[in-house]
Amino acid sequence: MPSSSSLVSPPVHPSRSAAAVPGSAIRDLLRLTETPAVLSMAGGLPATELIPAQRIADATAAAVGDRDLLQYTASAGLRRTRESIARHEAVAPEQVLVTHGSQQALSLLAAALVDPGDVVVVDDPVYVGAMQVFASVGADIRGLPLTEKGIDVSLLARWCADGLRPTIVHTVTAFHNPGGVSADAARRRDLAELADRHGFWVIDDDPYGRLRFRGDVPAPTRSFGDRVITLGSASKILAPALRVGWLIAPPQVVALVERLRQSADLCGSALCQAVVGDLLDDTDWLSAHIAAVAGAYSRRAHALVAALDDVFGEAIETSVPDGGMFCWARLPGVDTTALLDAAVGHGVAYVPGQAFSVRRDLSDRLRLSFATLTEDQLRTAAGRLHAATAAG
Amino acid sequence: MPSSSSLVSPPVHPSRSAAAVPGSAIRDLLRLTETPAVLSMAGGLPATELIPAQRIADATAAAVGDRDLLQYTASAGLRRTRESIARHEAVAPEQVLVTHGSQQALSLLAAALVDPGDVVVVDDPVYVGAMQVFASVGADIRGLPLTEKGIDVSLLARWCADGLRPTIVHTVTAFHNPGGVSADAARRRDLAELADRHGFWVIDDDPYGRLRFRGDVPAPTRSFGDRVITLGSASKILAPALRVGWLIAPPQVVALVERLRQSADLCGSALCQAVVGDLLDDTDWLSAHIAAVAGAYSRRAHALVAALDDVFGEAIETSVPDGGMFCWARLPGVDTTALLDAAVGHGVAYVPGQAFSVRRDLSDRLRLSFATLTEDQLRTAAGRLHAATAAG
Repeated sequence: MPSSSSLVSPPVHPSRSAAAVPGSAIRDLLRLTETPAVLSMAGGLPATELIPAQRIADATAAAVGDRDLLQYTASAGLRRTRESIARHEAVAPEQVLVTHGSQQALSLLAAALVDPGDVVVVDDPVYVGAMQVFASVGADIRGLPLTEKGIDVSLLARWCADGLRPTIVHTVTAFHNPGGVSADAARRRDLAELADRHGFWVIDDDPYGRLRFRGDVPAPTRSFGDRVITLGSASKILAPALRVGWLIAPPQVVALVERLRQSADLCGSALCQAVVGDLLDDTDWLSAHIAAVAGAYSRRAHALVAALDDVFGEAIETSVPDGGMFCWARLPGVDTTALLDAAVGHGVAYVPGQAFSVRRDLSDRLRLSFATLTEDQLRTAAGRLHAATAAG
Repeated sequence: MPSSSSLVSPPVHPSRSAAAVPGSAIRDLLRLTETPAVLSMAGGLPATELIPAQRIADATAAAVGDRDLLQYTASAGLRRTRESIARHEAVAPEQVLVTHGSQQALSLLAAALVDPGDVVVVDDPVYVGAMQVFASVGADIRGLPLTEKGIDVSLLARWCADGLRPTIVHTVTAFHNPGGVSADAARRRDLAELADRHGFWVIDDDPYGRLRFRGDVPAPTRSFGDRVITLGSASKILAPALRVGWLIAPPQVVALVERLRQSADLCGSALCQAVVGDLLDDTDWLSAHIAAVAGAYSRRAHALVAALDDVFGEAIETSVPDGGMFCWARLPGVDTTALLDAAVGHGVAYVPGQAFSVRRDLSDRLRLSFATLTEDQLRTAAGRLHAATAAG
């Protein structure tokens, strides 16, 4: 029997900070494209069929047999999982705090470090989840135009020289979402050194870094300075439903975030954290698993870009990224927001570039995820996209 | 190889809202008492040995076989689990939002509804997690002295008549933490009606309501009005590590919180939510399981209170609650904060009453959890507590 409140709707007055949080156009869009008739490149999900379900089932069965893993755990995370992540990231356990996905690390860091009006610099195009988080704490958000070689540290240095004093600079250094690009070692070093010089925190948001198709692994940004916080995640290399992410930061930042986490949700799941720790510790298996995922994504990325080049010719600008899950393409002269309806009508979906804009005009851009479709499906999707463009 | 940041400690400037969040004295205390030599009644954990580990293992094994449950899920929660919770609580699925423990429901509601300076009324003594949450959003927190019959709605009505305009009134209506008491049907009705009259939201925080030893189940507060939000949790009836809580609210509130949850941590674990849904749906098993847990807690509560009465005589004021996990005792003339060191020295721990104070002098009070010790251990603990008092 539904209670009376199912039938009535008293007025709701959102707080000012709640009203400041934009909804995610991407998530709203995803709902519209969830039909089998649409080949969706709009999502940010990893490939379901590449999730190591059997290994997760085995690790879960082992963990659930330990009753202590069914209890509350420490706000900073299960000790042994902090140690596993510390080995995985080559840091000390005291630098690790386990979060409920790396998005929680981002929201707790924003709450911990940002006062209303503080300047926060983000990439433009921006990871939408970062935009939501920094809007919710009332930050003065500045978009730093992303370059083909990642974050524009030279421009940032000029802004600082001109007096800008950011509290946080947030960037996705490897296989950018949505930009696809990566910052090389020189940019990582320059960014970390700039942070030390001007006293801001760098948040190096890195869920995709292990999914590399080609090129050498650069040293992490944190190796070049003292004010770099790294975010990591099990979602793209193991499974999103484990909801295990982490931050790597100086112990004082860890302690501050730990205190806020008590208030946010007390602690994470010891069970899920134990599963992730066990799988990270099985390094031979993990390397082979990640290589298999990255290999599949590489084949898909190449298939998509080749198909796009094939059907669009000169009408598209795109390239195969060095890793990750996203192609960031450009259709000069096309308004990709306006095109979306026709695209869905032709059975293909993507996210229009403007959804990732801080200030730039990204109306001819689009983000294409190649992670969840097969090579054949991606080729079909490219054809449908072209047909939608031609019909427009 | 630890990165350079393990060796240095750049200055950390917490945001004003972060600086406003008190640490939990209870959690800090728990660390000190985690030695086998101490019989701790300080915790807020359910009994580990009463967690239905085998049923959880079976449900987890079934869920992990479904790859879709290893992916991201909706921010409001897995649809089928929202439906299971809706049946469990006798509401509509659209009124249910699944959270990462009910603490997350509380923190998201505070972010959604409270602006800095808004008045929030809490019980005094208060659930410490609520105090942390409302402090973090800059609320003007008012403590309403808790009575032997739960929340003092008459006093709250006088405050409202005198012009107080709370945004939220937070209370634990059943088996209060730490107060042990419950609000009867009349108080629940009066509270809900007062909320409708003055336009505030009631948050009826109810993790313990199913753990009833005696007495009839009163109608939920939400059945008496339109501005009542109920928080529920699987932590005390199934297992904390599932990290599944929920809120029940009008759909507009659900939609607002859903949007904030995207920013906070994207979504919960479809896997854990599926496990909870399956166990809630097995209503015959669940009723028997909860009855077994409540029965054990009842025997423990009676053993503890009888032992305290036996060793302290007139020097203690306590009573067996009707359910839940806590005895809220009084040692007239004793400073329970000052006594704690001696108590731990005697091998027993509790939480001093002052830790739960908003404004009241609760220095002769103490919270005793009877959930995690056996009846024999509780009798020993009572004797040790008396010895510590006698030695002081």
